[in-house]
Amino acid sequence: MPTNKKIVLASRPGGDARATLENFSLVELPAPEPGPGQVLVRHDYLSLDPYMRGRMNDSKSYAAAQSLGEAMVGGTVGEVVASNNPKFAVGDKVAGMGGWQLYALDDGAQLRKIEPNGLPVQAWLGVLGMPGVTAWVGVNRIIAPKAGETLAVSAATGAVGSIVGQLAKAAGARTVGIAGGPEKCAYAVEALGFDACVDHRAENFADLLKAAAPDGIDGLFENVGGKCFDAAARRLNDFGRVALCGLVASYQGAESSSLRDLRVVLVRRLKIQGFIVFDHLDLWPKAVAELGALIAQGKLHWRESIAEGIEAAPAAFLGLLEGRNFGKQLVKLR
Amino acid sequence: MPTNKKIVLASRPGGDARATLENFSLVELPAPEPGPGQVLVRHDYLSLDPYMRGRMNDSKSYAAAQSLGEAMVGGTVGEVVASNNPKFAVGDKVAGMGGWQLYALDDGAQLRKIEPNGLPVQAWLGVLGMPGVTAWVGVNRIIAPKAGETLAVSAATGAVGSIVGQLAKAAGARTVGIAGGPEKCAYAVEALGFDACVDHRAENFADLLKAAAPDGIDGLFENVGGKCFDAAARRLNDFGRVALCGLVASYQGAESSSLRDLRVVLVRRLKIQGFIVFDHLDLWPKAVAELGALIAQGKLHWRESIAEGIEAAPAAFLGLLEGRNFGKQLVKLR
Repeated sequence: MPTNKKIVLASRPGGDARATLENFSLVELPAPEPGPGQVLVRHDYLSLDPYMRGRMNDSKSYAAAQSLGEAMVGGTVGEVVASNNPKFAVGDKVAGMGGWQLYALDDGAQLRKIEPNGLPVQAWLGVLGMPGVTAWVGVNRIIAPKAGETLAVSAATGAVGSIVGQLAKAAGARTVGIAGGPEKCAYAVEALGFDACVDHRAENFADLLKAAAPDGIDGLFENVGGKCFDAAARRLNDFGRVALCGLVASYQGAESSSLRDLRVVLVRRLKIQGFIVFDHLDLWPKAVAELGALIAQGKLHWRESIAEGIEAAPAAFLGLLEGRNFGKQLVKLR
Repeated sequence: MPTNKKIVLASRPGGDARATLENFSLVELPAPEPGPGQVLVRHDYLSLDPYMRGRMNDSKSYAAAQSLGEAMVGGTVGEVVASNNPKFAVGDKVAGMGGWQLYALDDGAQLRKIEPNGLPVQAWLGVLGMPGVTAWVGVNRIIAPKAGETLAVSAATGAVGSIVGQLAKAAGARTVGIAGGPEKCAYAVEALGFDACVDHRAENFADLLKAAAPDGIDGLFENVGGKCFDAAARRLNDFGRVALCGLVASYQGAESSSLRDLRVVLVRRLKIQGFIVFDHLDLWPKAVAELGALIAQGKLHWRESIAEGIEAAPAAFLGLLEGRNFGKQLVKLR
C-alpha cells in the first residue's frame, strides 16, 4: 500500500488563544485498505476554512470537537482508487470530508460524485461547495436583497465573500466589500464587480465605509466580526438584515464581537441571524445548480490561494485565520 | 364649548436620564370645534405604554419625537361628540391616537369605529389594541412556537406579556414568565396559565429561570432587557428566536442591554429580531379577529391598572416604567 500522510491535532490551543504550528503534527502510515462497502479516495485538494479553528477547541459548539491524534477535519476532492461500494468505481472523481490527509476511507455516505464538465475539481471545495452554498443561503434565505438595496460583506475577497458579492449584485443590489489591504480591495471592484470595497486596515476605515455606503446598509453578510462588524452595524438602515456567518476576528482571540446596545435592534427593527450551511442541506442541490448556471454564463469569478503538499497545511491554515490568503485557500495534495 | 384638559411635554429628560413629574404640565383650554371633515372625540380612556418614554427624547427613532408644549401622544378610546365627517356620527364609539387629553380632533384617518359587543371599550387599548396585536405579531410571525417548545416572556403580566403567554400556550408551547414580585408571578401561573413564572427580583433569579426552563428556551419575547434578557439569552437553545419588542429596563437608564459575545448567535444559530407593531398594520384585522375569537371562547384573560383622571397620567406613566402597574395601564377620563 502507498504511504498516507496526515496532519493530526496534537494539542488544543485553548479557547481564545492563538493556534500555532505546535498544535499540529505530521503522521505517516500505510494507506488503509477498504473494508466491505468502503471506498479509498486519493485526494487531489484539501479545503481550509475558518470553521476548523472552532473544532480545535474542546468546547460545546454545533459540531463535535476534533479528536486529538486524529486527522484534522476538512473537505476534500479526489479520485476513487479502490472500491468495495457498488456506487463508486475506481477513477470516479468525488468530493467528501476526507480530512487533512492524502488518502481517506469512506463508506460512501459522505461522498458525492463530481462531473467536472470542464471545471477544475477544486471548484467543488469553493464556489460549488460549502463556501458557495454558504454564500447562496445567506444571501437568498436570510438577507434576500431587493434591487436598489445596499449589501455589505466582510472578507469580501474570500471564498464566501466573493460569491456573496456577485450573487447580491446579480440580485440588483449595490455591493460594498470590506477586505484587508488595497490589493484585495482593487480586486473586489475590478474582478468581482463590487460597487465599492473598503480596506479595514485603513485608519479612517469607518469614514471610508460611510462614504462607500452613502444610503446606509440594508443587508450585512458578516464573516469577520470585531471592528468590521462594529462599523457596518452602525450604518444599518431600518429593517436591516444581518446574516452572521463567521466571526474570524474572534477565533484567535484578537477581537471580541459584541452588540453594545440592543436598542439599535429595536429602533431599527433589525434581524440578526446566525446560520451554518449544514443546517440547510435541503437547499444544496438548488444552490449548486444556480451557482453552476452563473459559472456557465461567465458571471461568477473566483480566485484561489494554493499551498503545495500536506506539510504546508498548518501554516496555510494559520495564514487564513489572519487573512493572508487571497481567495479560496486550498492545499494541493498531488 | 367644554374645557379640554391636556398633559403636555414641558421639558425633555435627556437621553437615558429618568423622566420625572417635572417633565409634564397640565394645560386647560376650551375644547376645539371640528373643522371641515373633522370629528371631535371625548375620551373615555387613555392608554399608557412604555414606548412613550422614547418619544420624550429628542433623538432619532422610528417615530418622530414628541413636540414640546403639545399633548403627549397616546392611544385613546372615546365617543364622537361632534362630527363634520360623514363616516362618523355623534355617539359612535371610536379608538384613535387622541393623546393625553380629554378631547381630541381627528380628520378620521386615525379613527376606527368600535363595536363593543359586550366588551368594555378599553379592551381596544389592550387585548384588542396595540398591545394585543403586538403580542400576536411577535408570537406568530417572529417566534412561531412549535408544540413542545419553551417560550419565555419578560413583563409577563403586562399588557403585552400576558397575551404573549396565552397565545403561546394555545400554540402548544411550554410558557415561562418573568415578572417582578411574587404576587405577579402567582397571577401569571394561576390566572394566565403560564407553566412557570420567575421573579426577576429574586436573588437567585438566574438559577430559578434555569429550573423553570429545564429544556432551555426556544422563543424569547423580550420586553425588558437588562438582567432579564441576560439570564434568558443564556438559556436559548439552538435555533432560538428572540422577538425584541421592548427594553424598558433601559428607558430610564437603569440597565443597559447588550449582547456581549456574538459567538452565541453563530454557534446556536439564533435569530434576534426587533419589531414594532406599526410596521405590521396589514396583520391588524387578522390579529384582532383571532384575539376576539379567543375572548369569546373565554380563553384570554387580562387585568387592568386604572388611574383616575388626566391629572393622574404622569405619575401612572412613571410607575409603568418601573413596573408598579399590574396588567394594562389605563387612565380613566370620564
